[in-house]
Amino acid sequence: MNLTTVEKALDIILSNSENFGIEEVSFLNSRGRVLKEDIVADRDFPPFNRVSMDGIAIQSEAFFKGVRTFDIEGIQAAGNPQLQLQSNHNCLEAMTGAVLPKNTDAVIPYEQVEINNGTVTVGVESIKKFQNIHKKGLDRKQGTLLIHKDTVISSAEIGVLATVGKSTIKVAKQPKVIIVSTGNELVEVSETPKEHQIRRSNVYTLVSLLERLNIKAETAHILDDKELLEQRIKSFLDDYDVLLFSGAVSKGKYDFIPEVLDNLGVNKLFHRVQQRPGKPFWFGKKNTTTIFAFPGNPVSTFVGCLKYFYPWFQKSVGISFINKEQAVLSDDFYFKPQLTYFLQVKLTQKEGTLMATPISGRGSGDLANLIDADAFLELPADRTNFTKGEVFPLINYR
Amino acid sequence: MNLTTVEKALDIILSNSENFGIEEVSFLNSRGRVLKEDIVADRDFPPFNRVSMDGIAIQSEAFFKGVRTFDIEGIQAAGNPQLQLQSNHNCLEAMTGAVLPKNTDAVIPYEQVEINNGTVTVGVESIKKFQNIHKKGLDRKQGTLLIHKDTVISSAEIGVLATVGKSTIKVAKQPKVIIVSTGNELVEVSETPKEHQIRRSNVYTLVSLLERLNIKAETAHILDDKELLEQRIKSFLDDYDVLLFSGAVSKGKYDFIPEVLDNLGVNKLFHRVQQRPGKPFWFGKKNTTTIFAFPGNPVSTFVGCLKYFYPWFQKSVGISFINKEQAVLSDDFYFKPQLTYFLQVKLTQKEGTLMATPISGRGSGDLANLIDADAFLELPADRTNFTKGEVFPLINYR
Repeated sequence: MNLTTVEKALDIILSNSENFGIEEVSFLNSRGRVLKEDIVADRDFPPFNRVSMDGIAIQSEAFFKGVRTFDIEGIQAAGNPQLQLQSNHNCLEAMTGAVLPKNTDAVIPYEQVEINNGTVTVGVESIKKFQNIHKKGLDRKQGTLLIHKDTVISSAEIGVLATVGKSTIKVAKQPKVIIVSTGNELVEVSETPKEHQIRRSNVYTLVSLLERLNIKAETAHILDDKELLEQRIKSFLDDYDVLLFSGAVSKGKYDFIPEVLDNLGVNKLFHRVQQRPGKPFWFGKKNTTTIFAFPGNPVSTFVGCLKYFYPWFQKSVGISFINKEQAVLSDDFYFKPQLTYFLQVKLTQKEGTLMATPISGRGSGDLANLIDADAFLELPADRTNFTKGEVFPLINYR
Repeated sequence: MNLTTVEKALDIILSNSENFGIEEVSFLNSRGRVLKEDIVADRDFPPFNRVSMDGIAIQSEAFFKGVRTFDIEGIQAAGNPQLQLQSNHNCLEAMTGAVLPKNTDAVIPYEQVEINNGTVTVGVESIKKFQNIHKKGLDRKQGTLLIHKDTVISSAEIGVLATVGKSTIKVAKQPKVIIVSTGNELVEVSETPKEHQIRRSNVYTLVSLLERLNIKAETAHILDDKELLEQRIKSFLDDYDVLLFSGAVSKGKYDFIPEVLDNLGVNKLFHRVQQRPGKPFWFGKKNTTTIFAFPGNPVSTFVGCLKYFYPWFQKSVGISFINKEQAVLSDDFYFKPQLTYFLQVKLTQKEGTLMATPISGRGSGDLANLIDADAFLELPADRTNFTKGEVFPLINYR
């Protein structure tokens, strides 16, 4: 039997990444998206010498010459234009966030002064020039690169985008994806299945897994009918960047997907991978449309999406990050077949180290086991014994 | 100065959690929400003796008696009602996912047979009764608890919900939140600030941090005017479950928030926490409305939301999980003030262990530093020297 190794399969998939282009979105709707422009400081940060404690602003020279009482000339509030201290023997009250007044160069906090009738008496014997002043440009100079192109936008980036006035930004366009289930045994979630039927679930798992990547996928269901499949998939190939299938890729009489895709001129890049679950996975391409056809059992579909579609998508939109997470196996584990095994594990963290405890599965089709687990530990194909304390690659889905 | 310790502050906050009630949502829109009902298996899983390999279904008795060739009576396809094998000397082709035909009890895969003219010759010398059959109820029996109440719904749960036909489910209602910025120095993101002004950013950071929790927050901006503040906050207290403030809680002349909240009958539970950044944090309650008033500098607001609002929300909606993530400090670090220090760190994973590398900050106001970091490491207040290799609590915001 001709099995592609997991490493080779991933290589082929990654070398077939695509570019979906760029679009402009509101910065506030950009969380999780991939930035497609460099973001630079539009001014110095802080943009002015910024008062960083509430207190009084003075000319330090006067203090060093022995002056300890200062008459208050006024208040420099945040949001007000810069005032100017008129006399070195006076002071201005100055608030956090305010511009440092002209002719002042130190702020003494309220905690260190007494105020009586408009006169301030300073209660400390030493101050430093520029104390409690966040100097103009100290954090970042105008023009400095703040956020690199290809950064995945998080809440931290959203704050910076707001600060520099980028109300809209360029991000990677998301692919247009359709998720297709096949199989005459499937009925809708809201229906009551007959004895020999089951409800459609894999498409919804996939919709949800893609939602995590901020992809809004469409869905379709096609009965096990070759003509119907050909006709509908033909139009999907024209209309979408990605087709995800679940089911009909194995050796059954009605597993028409590989044949139909072949008839439609899709270039098969591999079929069957040396892994469990998910061995009958089929991958191909037609022009710029990429086709992932996962086996129909729920766990195969789930792990296939995480292991193959996720990194393909991430590479396509330009995310330099590739999942390198690992975890420590907490118990000895034995797996005989010469297949990469995606072991369902429960994760705990112990002193900063991620421990993976195997969940005893009841076969690859047992979706309910995914509930008890958090992740898959990827055990290599060339061994049968995996020892407590060893470290393996991890795919976390929580 | 009266500082509340970080531990005490969190205790007070958690003992003031709220219950926002329950609502019914479509299962497909429930990712990240907290389930408020137990989900049980509506039937056995698998619901019937399920064929798990494509091949032929036979009566094993016949095989054990020496029969090796079987005439094909028909095909048991997935989604078709159960057939019955008429003669023990015959077989039915049976597809993965199909009901096992009546009067059969073993499936021999296509790989192990030859088919000529409607007759199958089996090429193996031993089979097992029930081989390649996923037995009814093996995974889960009807009525078994599949997903506990209070589970946070992920893609795995979505698949199970679909399988058991829960097209709508009960989840914890989200709180109604308004995020309020104050400060005359703030202008909108799309505006060009004057020399002494800066753009409004903290509310958007907070909106985005709450979006991570699937909370759609509203926002407001109020100028530093006591009467205006009182009037608008009064109505917010009536209309929202949570008020988040950013700014105006320190000692400045225009830091009206504590006074205004007091005037409006809000019960102050603490003001000022023994931490950096974020010391002037104010927390209080009026009836069932909870008020988090964070200091206005961007990093203080950011860390305050993650350290205090997040666990408060999680406890309120019934998430049993409390962040216990930790990481290993990668370099010696020194911090003198007797304050809990939220150190900005970059995370890397090494053999399953999370390493935290300090990012040299330029003061708590430097939002741009958050871009270079991934998380905060929480260094306790009672020490000044933190040694490479030590493990500390972590707040990861990526």
